Formats: sequence, structure tokens, C-alpha cells
Amino acid sequence: MTPEFNLIHQFFTRPTAQTDLSIGDDAALISVANGMQLAISADMLVAGSHFFADCDPYQLGWKSLAVNISDMAAMGAQPKWATLAIALPNIDANWLSQFSDGFFACASQHDVDLIGGDTTRGHLVISIQIMGEVPIGAAIKRSGAQLNDDIWVSGKLGSAALGLAYLQNTLAHNLLNADDLALCLQALHAPTPRSALGLSLRGIATSCIDISDGLLADLGHILNASNCGATLDLAAIPCIGLLKASLENPAMQSYILAGGDDYELCFTAPKSARENLTKISAQLNCPLTLIGEIHAEKGLNVTYQNKKVYLSKNGFDHFG
Amino acid sequence: MTPEFNLIHQFFTRPTAQTDLSIGDDAALISVANGMQLAISADMLVAGSHFFADCDPYQLGWKSLAVNISDMAAMGAQPKWATLAIALPNIDANWLSQFSDGFFACASQHDVDLIGGDTTRGHLVISIQIMGEVPIGAAIKRSGAQLNDDIWVSGKLGSAALGLAYLQNTLAHNLLNADDLALCLQALHAPTPRSALGLSLRGIATSCIDISDGLLADLGHILNASNCGATLDLAAIPCIGLLKASLENPAMQSYILAGGDDYELCFTAPKSARENLTKISAQLNCPLTLIGEIHAEKGLNVTYQNKKVYLSKNGFDHFG
Repeated sequence: MTPEFNLIHQFFTRPTAQTDLSIGDDAALISVANGMQLAISADMLVAGSHFFADCDPYQLGWKSLAVNISDMAAMGAQPKWATLAIALPNIDANWLSQFSDGFFACASQHDVDLIGGDTTRGHLVISIQIMGEVPIGAAIKRSGAQLNDDIWVSGKLGSAALGLAYLQNTLAHNLLNADDLALCLQALHAPTPRSALGLSLRGIATSCIDISDGLLADLGHILNASNCGATLDLAAIPCIGLLKASLENPAMQSYILAGGDDYELCFTAPKSARENLTKISAQLNCPLTLIGEIHAEKGLNVTYQNKKVYLSKNGFDHFG
Repeated sequence: MTPEFNLIHQFFTRPTAQTDLSIGDDAALISVANGMQLAISADMLVAGSHFFADCDPYQLGWKSLAVNISDMAAMGAQPKWATLAIALPNIDANWLSQFSDGFFACASQHDVDLIGGDTTRGHLVISIQIMGEVPIGAAIKRSGAQLNDDIWVSGKLGSAALGLAYLQNTLAHNLLNADDLALCLQALHAPTPRSALGLSLRGIATSCIDISDGLLADLGHILNASNCGATLDLAAIPCIGLLKASLENPAMQSYILAGGDDYELCFTAPKSARENLTKISAQLNCPLTLIGEIHAEKGLNVTYQNKKVYLSKNGFDHFG
């Protein structure tokens, strides 16, 4: 076998559980279950933009897939299949071994089969497409938020951004104790997509998005698609202690509201769903926090101590 | 909207014909018809490796999708949906306009909906995933070739490689007349995937592959998967006049057998299918040529005037 085919075979070909024809032919073949729609999402990650070129390959493999599974969670879809196209500067068996281990660790945790892709030479670029199933009509879209709906988020926001700032030396190192630093770096390098939560929100959440660019940017997509506005209470937004203690500080506000890379879910639900969501939170051991409300008046407001908070930047844009 | 979202909206959002939920949410939603399997294939194209960074963007847009549709044809699948992830060095509206025009020209010719993707900053990289439908069990795999099957190819081989060699000045410019040069450059820049042929081969071809790396390399995949060997007659392989007239020349043999980028189909079929295939060829106005035979003895032989032809290189490998 030639080197390119060797790569695919050696590092990326593993048994599949729910795939009719996997890697090795001109295309893979799958069967979508009756009564299901197929949800499809794609992401491209570029060295230098989305991750450091010298980052840990195991974590990179994990995170590359995790951020895509997060898109499935945001639709209430069960992730099932993925393809991986990767451009590599050279064949480094050790790097590839670790990258594929991280990738498949995430895949097996979420029962995702890797069914196809491509390997080629170039600057390091990772392109993943994820596919999942959702019952017909049950997908949770961005466009379904209703007036007076509650706005919820899972987990804590701002941790990954703090971790990145720490590594880039834009955050004073003495601000995070060892435990919090570990949490922040974990959130940055190996987020756990909220797959189980996404499935549990079917029939309950009226809209949902995963927070990748930042809470304000991503909630903004829901508001645009649903043609409504929202007000959030900054003090209600869950975050680690350092941020909770510094809410009056605009830099700290920015981590929470626009840090990005959280991969938590932000969703809306009727007030009548509060009890149900409390139960789901306990069952899944996944914190869910009420942070605001949908209203008719357009715009996205954040209040703190009864005053509006303003940010200079709303989320991350590669070209902005 | 921020620049990144503007890009997606402006250049890549067009009406879809067969998609439940297209670009604009966390994932797209499609419904696969009852009785069908979904065929999925992915390709990554890197500037400098697969195409010149300064090539015509319209042709690049066309070809990027065409080479993926070719993988659908090789399975006998009807292409229906695609995602496009692209890394761009900057926002050049003129370039993007032409690229998307070429992409959608190919898409509309083959009734393919663009349903999702990603745009980000980086060296120019294009990653496309194509999805199509094929009746359950009817996909034409690489592994089905039978002893004594005929080996066929569509169209002509070697033209795209000649075109590339011309542009790279490794082929003397006086060897191609103006008409042949135009054909070769067309084959190189804007190949037409054999989609209709692929569909017509369902139930007839025992194996099939599209020729991207080169005839010998790609037929080699069929032989490996089907656990058999083959002998080809060089003089039978369809190619333009320049090559036909120079079959004793190893460099010219190489264009035919290992030039690559042909995007023709190479398939096997029982001898009893010859009449049927002749009719299909006429109906589709697609030349089909018998070039060899499958046999039990392993190995891929090419004979010319009753002597074996040897090549130093079997197909294109990015890392070889």
C-alpha cells in the first residue's frame, strides 16, 4: 500500500457498529432508521486559528469530534456517523497515533462510527462531518423560541476562554488556583459535548444552540431566527468562582458572555417546563441554570444590578 | 451580520429542492427515501497539491464538486446533498462569487443541494462531503469483480494529465494541436462526472471505481478488494490521438495508465452484459470501451503487442 492508503488503514480504520459499508470503497453506506431524519453538520478546524499547531494531538483528536457532536446535541439528534478529512504536513506516526486515539475515545464514548474521509498533504487542517438521527419533526431548531420562554444554559460558561487566556498570558497567572486552572484547561482542550442533554430536550426545548462562538453571539442566532429579543441577568449566568467574584469587571464579563469555546447548550423552554428540566438536570448530573427570558422587544440585553452591561465585541469571527 | 456569516449567506445559501432544513441552523436535516441506503463520500483539496492557488475560481468551484459526484457515480448512487467547508486566506468577494457560481453550476446540473458547511480563515483548502441515495443492496462496490468479467472504461484516459503536463511545461507544447489542447484543459479543469452512467450500471456492473489517481492504481483497488487479477490491452484503452500514436513510448503510456484526474469510470461486468452496455453507451452518448479481463492469477498486467508493459509508478500518492 502506498503511504496515503497506509495512513487511512492504520490509524483510522476501526470496526463500526451501525454502518453498512465503512472505509474502503468509493463511498460509505448507511441506513437511516424509519421515522428518522438525518441531521448533518460540518466543521473545519485550522492550525493557528482554532488550535495551536503544537497542541497535544490526543486532545486535538478528541476536541475535533467533540465540537461536532455538540452540534448534534443542539438539534436533539443522536450522533451516529462521522467522516474525517485531514491535511497533514508530514506523516508522523506518533502524532497520528495519538490524534486517532483521542478521536476514537470521543467517538466510542458517544457511539459514533468513523465511516469515511480523506488524508492529504498540507498545513494541518481538520474537516469533520457529523451525522445523526432525530425523529421526524422533532429536531430542536434555532427558530422556535416563544415569547416569555425561559432561557437556560448548561454547565458553566467562560472556563475555556479563561484557560486560553492563561496559556496566551493575557490572564494573570495568579488569578486561577491549581484546581480551577485544571478545570479551565480541561474545558479548553477536551470539552464534553452535551449529547445526553440534547436528547432529553426533545419535546421540551423550543430552541437550542451550542455555545461555540460565545453566549451573546450564539443566543443572538436564536433571537434572529426566532424574531424576538431577550434579557439576561449576568449574575445568574453560571461560571467559576473567579468570574462570579468579578462581575463588575468588563474583561471578566467578556469571558462569560463572549469567551466562546464553551460547548454548553443554550436553550429556551416554556416556564411550565421548569420542574421537568430540574428533574432532567438531576438525572443527567448536568447543571442547568435559568439565565433570562425571551420577550417581544428586539435586542439582546444583559443586566447587572439593574443596569445594562455593554460589550465591545459580540463573539468570535475569524474574519472580523 | 459578521463577515463570516455574511460569506455563508451571500455566496453559499441558495434554494434547495430536496432538503428539509438547509443552511442556517446547527445542522441540516434531510429525509432518506424508504428503500434507500445513503452513500457518503468526502474529499479534501489543498491549494498547491490538488490545484494551483491562482487557478480560475469558477473552474475550481465546478471541479471541487465534480470529483465528489464522481465518487457517487462509482457506487451507482444518485447524488443529492453536499456540504462545503472552506478555508480562505481572505474575503475576496469576486473570487468567492466565481467559485460559488462554478460550484452551483455543477450542483444544479446534477440536482445536488448544498445544505451546510463551514467557512474559516487559512490557506486555501476545500473540503466537500457528498451524499446520495442508492437502493438497498444495489450499490456497486469495489469488491464484486468476478473471474472472466470484462473490464471497461468510459470516455478517454490521459487527457487531464496531458493538460497538466502542458501547463507545467513538462510536455512539449507542439505536441498538442489547439483542439486537443482545449479538450485536455477541459478534462483537467472541469471534468464531467459520469453520474448517469453510474446509475445505468446498477444491476450490471459487478464492481466499479472512478479513476482519480490513475487507471492502474484505481483498478488495483478493485483487484485487491475482489481478490483477483487482471490483464489489460494497452492498445484497447481509449485516449486522444497523440497518445494512441505513441503507445510504445513509456512517458505516453504513463499518461494513460497513471496520469490520473480522469474521473471516468472503470468497471467490471460479465461478458453477457456486452450487448446491454453497448445500448447504454448509445443511450447516454457516453463511450464505453472494453480494455481487459479479470482472471484468478493475482497481479495487474498490461500488454502491448504481446509484451508486458512496466511502469515505474502506479498512480499518484500525496505522500509517496
